[in-house]
Parts: sequence; C-alpha cells; structure tokens
Amino acid sequence: MSIVDSIYEDFRNAVIDGRYLPGTRLPSIREAAASWNCNKVTVKKAYDRLKVAGYIENTVGKGSFVKFPKRFGEQKDPFSFQTASIGEELFPTEETRELTNKLYREVGSSLFAAAPPGGDPACLDALSHFYRIPRDRTVVISGAQQGLDLAGRLLSRPVSESVVFEDPTYSGAINLFRPKHFIPLDKDGPDLDRIEEYAKKGMDAYYAMPQVHNPTGRSYTSTVMEKVAELGEKYNFLIVEDDYLSEFLPDFFERTPTRFLDLIPERTVYIKSLSKVTAPGIRIGLMVVPSELKEELLFSKFNTDIGTSSFMQNIVRAFIAEGILKKSLYSYRRICTERRTRLEKLLDSYPFLSYTSGRPGYNIWVHSEVDPNISDPPWAKGENFSFDPRYKSFFRLSFMSQAEQRFTVGLDYLAEILNGLSRADSPGVF
Amino acid sequence: MSIVDSIYEDFRNAVIDGRYLPGTRLPSIREAAASWNCNKVTVKKAYDRLKVAGYIENTVGKGSFVKFPKRFGEQKDPFSFQTASIGEELFPTEETRELTNKLYREVGSSLFAAAPPGGDPACLDALSHFYRIPRDRTVVISGAQQGLDLAGRLLSRPVSESVVFEDPTYSGAINLFRPKHFIPLDKDGPDLDRIEEYAKKGMDAYYAMPQVHNPTGRSYTSTVMEKVAELGEKYNFLIVEDDYLSEFLPDFFERTPTRFLDLIPERTVYIKSLSKVTAPGIRIGLMVVPSELKEELLFSKFNTDIGTSSFMQNIVRAFIAEGILKKSLYSYRRICTERRTRLEKLLDSYPFLSYTSGRPGYNIWVHSEVDPNISDPPWAKGENFSFDPRYKSFFRLSFMSQAEQRFTVGLDYLAEILNGLSRADSPGVF
Repeated sequence: MSIVDSIYEDFRNAVIDGRYLPGTRLPSIREAAASWNCNKVTVKKAYDRLKVAGYIENTVGKGSFVKFPKRFGEQKDPFSFQTASIGEELFPTEETRELTNKLYREVGSSLFAAAPPGGDPACLDALSHFYRIPRDRTVVISGAQQGLDLAGRLLSRPVSESVVFEDPTYSGAINLFRPKHFIPLDKDGPDLDRIEEYAKKGMDAYYAMPQVHNPTGRSYTSTVMEKVAELGEKYNFLIVEDDYLSEFLPDFFERTPTRFLDLIPERTVYIKSLSKVTAPGIRIGLMVVPSELKEELLFSKFNTDIGTSSFMQNIVRAFIAEGILKKSLYSYRRICTERRTRLEKLLDSYPFLSYTSGRPGYNIWVHSEVDPNISDPPWAKGENFSFDPRYKSFFRLSFMSQAEQRFTVGLDYLAEILNGLSRADSPGVF
Repeated sequence: MSIVDSIYEDFRNAVIDGRYLPGTRLPSIREAAASWNCNKVTVKKAYDRLKVAGYIENTVGKGSFVKFPKRFGEQKDPFSFQTASIGEELFPTEETRELTNKLYREVGSSLFAAAPPGGDPACLDALSHFYRIPRDRTVVISGAQQGLDLAGRLLSRPVSESVVFEDPTYSGAINLFRPKHFIPLDKDGPDLDRIEEYAKKGMDAYYAMPQVHNPTGRSYTSTVMEKVAELGEKYNFLIVEDDYLSEFLPDFFERTPTRFLDLIPERTVYIKSLSKVTAPGIRIGLMVVPSELKEELLFSKFNTDIGTSSFMQNIVRAFIAEGILKKSLYSYRRICTERRTRLEKLLDSYPFLSYTSGRPGYNIWVHSEVDPNISDPPWAKGENFSFDPRYKSFFRLSFMSQAEQRFTVGLDYLAEILNGLSRADSPGVF
C-alpha cells in the first residue's frame, strides 16, 4: 500500500467508524505531512481522493471537513464507471430548454393533461416513425425497466419458472424476476440446442438482448436470430426482445437492425429504452406487442401507473420531430468511440485483463485473471449479471455517465485501482 | 324521444354501424330538416350534439363530415363527468412555464439526471414539509396508482386474499387487485366489528380512504380512525391509507387531517396522489412506509421503473417552494364549491335522485331510484366501485375535469340525460 493509500484508508475508516464525525476538521496538510512523516504533495493526493470519494469537503481558507453522510442513492460516485447511462451533462439541455418553451406555446396546458394509457398519439407517431415499428401495436412506457415488469405480467406463470434468460443478462432483470433458467451466450448468440431443449420442456418466453447486449456488447448473428425465431414459431414461445442500444450499431441510420420484432412479430414483445439515448431523467420507453396482447398490456399499464407523463412524452416527440434525437445520437456515438479508445488503451496496459475491442455501445465487458472483487469497485461486478461463478472474474465498465472532465479524472482513478489489482497479483506483496 | 334525440340517434347509429364511413358528408341542415320534416334549429341541435360527442366535424363552408374513429382512450368525452381529475385547463400553465424556465436556469442539466429511486432530495424535502410527513420514510412515486401497486408488492400474500377493502372503494384498486374481502362503509366509517372479525382471521392489511373517500366523499370520524388504529395495533395488520383528497378538507391549511400515518405510523403505508391537486399529467405522488419496509419499497420501486422523472419532481418541488401549490389549491377549492353548488341544484330538480350535500372533494355520489345504467353514461357507474349489486343504483359525478365552458355545457347535457331517465321512470312511456 502506498502512503497515499494509507492516509486515504486511515481517514476513510475514521469517517466510516464514526471516530471523525461529520463537521470534524481534518488536520491541515502540513500537520498531516508531519505526523505521517511524508511530504505535503502525498497528503494532498490522499485528501483529494477523500474529497472526490465524498468523505470530506473543503471550505476555502478554513481547511477540510468531514462531510455529512450521503443519503441512500442520493449521490453518485463521481469516478464511477458503474452506471450504463448517458450523463446528463452530455444531454443537449439548452436545445431542450428552447424546445420546452416551444411546447408551452404550441401545446400549452395539454402538456399537463392525462395521456392515454397507450401513450400520447403524437408521441406514438414520432416513435413508430423513428424506430420503424407498427404504431397500432406500440405502447409508450416509463422506461425499459417498466417494460420488463409489464412483460412479466403478460405471462400466465411466474417469470422465474417460465422464462429462459441469457447468461449473462441485464442485472435489472435478475433483480426483478429472480430467474432460474439460463442459456449461455457465445459470440454468435445463444446455444440453439439449449433453447430447443427448454422449448420442448414448455418454456413460455425467452428474454434476449440480441443487439448490443448488456453487459457484453455482443450482437447475435442474423442467422442465429432467424433460427431462434424459427424455434419460437415451432414451439410457440414468446420472445421478449430488449433492444438495449441498437442505435449504437454502426449502420443504425442506414438500415433497420435485425429484430425479432420483424422476424416473428406475433410472438415478440419488443422493449425499447429511450433513456439510454436521451437522458436517464426522461423516463420514456416503448413496447411493441403482438396484437392479441395489446389490450392486456394497456390494462396492465393503466393498473401500474395510469399512464406516462404527457409532458415528457411531448418532449420526446418534439425531440424526434426536430431532429434532436438523431443529432444527439450522432454526438453520443462520437463521444462513445473516443472514450472507448481511451479506455481500451488503458486496459491494454494490464496484461491480466482481456476484452473484445471495438464492440458498439458504451460498456466494456472485461475479464480479469486477478480477482476483481474489491470492495466499492468503480465498475459493475460480473456477479450482478449472472449467478454463474465464472462471471465473478468479469466486470463491466460503462463510460458515458460522466461529464468529460470526470471521465478524464476517472481514468486516472481507474488506473490507480487497476494498479492495486496488479500489485495484488504480484507474489512479492505477500 | 324528442326529434333532436331521434336525429342524433339515427346518425350516430349510422356512424357506429359503418353505414356512414369516416369522411362521409352529412346532408346539409336544410336537406335534413326537409327529410325529417322539422325545422332547421332542431337539426342544428342534433348535429351539434353529434359534433361534441365526437362523431362528426365541421369544415367551414363545406358542411359536416363523419370523423375518423377515435383510437382507444385517446379522446375524452367532452361532456363527461366520469373522470375524477383536475382538467388541465384549470392548471396554472403560465406560472408553470415561468417556473420551468427558472428550473432550466437554476437546475440545468440535472433536470435530466437519474433521480434516486427514493426521490429527488429537494423534492422529498418540499413534500415532507408541505404534507407534514417524516422525510426519512417517504418515497416519491409516479402517482397514487403506482403506490397501490407497490403497496401490493410489500405484502407476502396475494392482495386479493390478504387485504380487506372498503365497500365501495376506488375502482383502480378493484382493477388492480381483484379484491375478495370487503367491509361496508357507513357514514362514520367502516363497521369496526367486521374489521375485528377479519383481523382475527388474519388479514394482512386494510385498505382505506379515511378522508374524502372516493367515490362517496365521506370521511371517517376521528373516533373511528382511532379505533381502527387500535385494532391494527392489537391484531398487527397494516393499514394502506390512500389519502385521496385531504387537501379539500375545509381546515386542511389550519391543521393536519387525522391520519393513520400519525396514529399508527409503524403500521401505516400512506399513499398520496399529487396529480389530484396539480394536473393529471404531472404523475407524481408520495408514499410513506414503516421504517422496516423502506428498503423493500426502494427495491420494488427500482424494479418497477428505476425512478420517477427528475424533471417532474423538480416541477413539483418548485411548485411547493414558490407557493403555487397552495395558491392553486385555494383556486381549485373555490371552483369546486361553485361547481358543486350548481350541480347540486341540478340534481335537486330530480326527485328520484339523492346524495349528501356539501361533502368535500370533487365527486358527488348519487343514488338513483331509476336504474341509471344507460349505455355510455356521462358519469362513472356505481358498479365500478363495488361488486355489491346494491351499488348498481349509484353513480359518481366528477366535476373538475372540464374547462369552465365545457362544465356549463355539460350541465345541460347531463340535464338531458337525467330527463331521459326521468321519462323512463314515467309509466306513460311504456
């Protein structure tokens, strides 16, 4: 452990143990340097880290003080690569402000009307056009997580019993459904024989992220998708298609991605998050279901929350109509490529790490030969995405949730953590 | 049936049967008057009714045309007294526009950040202050309906088996839970012996709207509330307290209403809609739970939809901070009193109708000695609120969902419908 680490750990523990109560003044950098018998730059580094980790704050001219404790989930770690979302700082807020004013002028009080449970008609128009989906089977939802929850309600048996999941799969699906049945993914998609086995045993649905899978970033080949669709047809199971990030496929604007929605429309429940391509605070998504499930979905949606905010639906509608969604997608993709390159370059300097380079989306799924399960890691642990112990040696880095400067500082922080892992790997330490 | 009724019915049926397809031009008023052998004013009246009912539309200088069909739930009947919500026209849109601009300046891109699953901290502060509720046990939700759904998930057994409901009760609760166990309400509240019976049999929770009950407008006496709370304590059941409209109690601003939340805090799941006092498009509510259920609620909320829109939470927060909520509540209450008076005056002219005058809130729960179960009634049918056949002779009139002019025209429409009932009651008709 470096002296910086020791100082950091020592004060951090003092805060956590309650020996340093909120409001306590820390020793000055000079005092601390004297008592640790090190130079002031070293102390400064440790204090900076305590600050960015949220344990202390500076009051100019008065020194450093222990912060009052964070409340549950109310503050995110500024250096985190945990969250697979677009940071609000990347969101075109100024354009949205202008758009909002326009909506007040043009839509007026209807911004605050109850939207129909299926969605605001104009928003449905815009979404179905942008995503090339059949409007009459589309329902606006409050984000993809709600889509999952609603999809679960369309099934007659408990999801954990009746639905087969990819392995690994989206952590939010694991939390929600506590699934029991999994099919390992390889680079082309799921093992088709395993799907057929489950199909023969009578599974009701298969939950898939066939394009830009979370956490791996993989996409099924078209051939695999066609074969899964054939199995769906043959054995009469539903496919819950979670379109996580197909907008990040390189040719998204040139052609519609291969989708179960198009291959096997009457057996696909398609879920699309929009938070992932706008901002997490938008809370809008969409769902396309087979005709025969539409009424049931509307009923469930109404029972769940009456309907999704008209206001936010209007924003999304105008976002599409004014071309802002397309424009910001181009911008997000550009930032994404640039950050991925920088992050991959960092990862490449650690020989115990491996990953597949250049996958689309804003996650990197990393395998580590050194156990990456440190406490409070700045990444999402592999075990969030799978019950299979072999994924304990994986982690997911998400690199679009930070503002630009945070990302840059975050890279340094990540390097420190990885250096720590690196040292743990070296037999000399023990 | 008057000639106006006949003409209306005739064309309406032609549209519904598909004999008049969308886009079909109706005969001119002159032509129709000739063929019906009546005067043009009569035809005009029937056409106007077809228009407001959404069957036809006028194109200036070209005549009246059959409209393209409404899509599911996308348009509300302009004369309806069905919806217990605040019409968006009554909402202070202009003030909210200014507020929104202020939020863009002051909060900026954080308007689009992910809110913590428990709610935006500043919004929680504002809500807990305004409603005098303990902040640390409060969670922001996307409307009261979501609160019900989440409350159901806190229970270990299916709600239909384990929860006892008031009779009548909120239709949204009936749709969501398909409850089986009910306790009739009388004017002071529920039958306490019946509650004790159910408690002995081991009910898990009692779902109640103790203040300004929907649909009846009744409030429990404080004595009854205290006794229910004692039973909850004694038999260890939860109370799901749906605070539907306590803001409309005459002394709401002077004193906190009697609430289970305060009487028996560690056994109360309190749900508060804010849509009912702002606008339905706001989609914000709050929930207060016993400390021991807080983490579970946060987990459920996250699984349901990750979190509620930061943007709308900021609007509600600023709405409270700037005093707009209080001001618009005063305004809503004034409009409410005025409309109630006019509506009661109308009802009083039909001797077969009875109701309790002057109850707070914006519903009137009406008993009719004539069967009120006509098709497409402009009110909410009693059977929406109860499985007990005796409530088939009741209906609920909600009078705050329309703009002022609509309300006035709506009264005339309602009078026509009630005249129709009245005639049905007269033996001469048959």
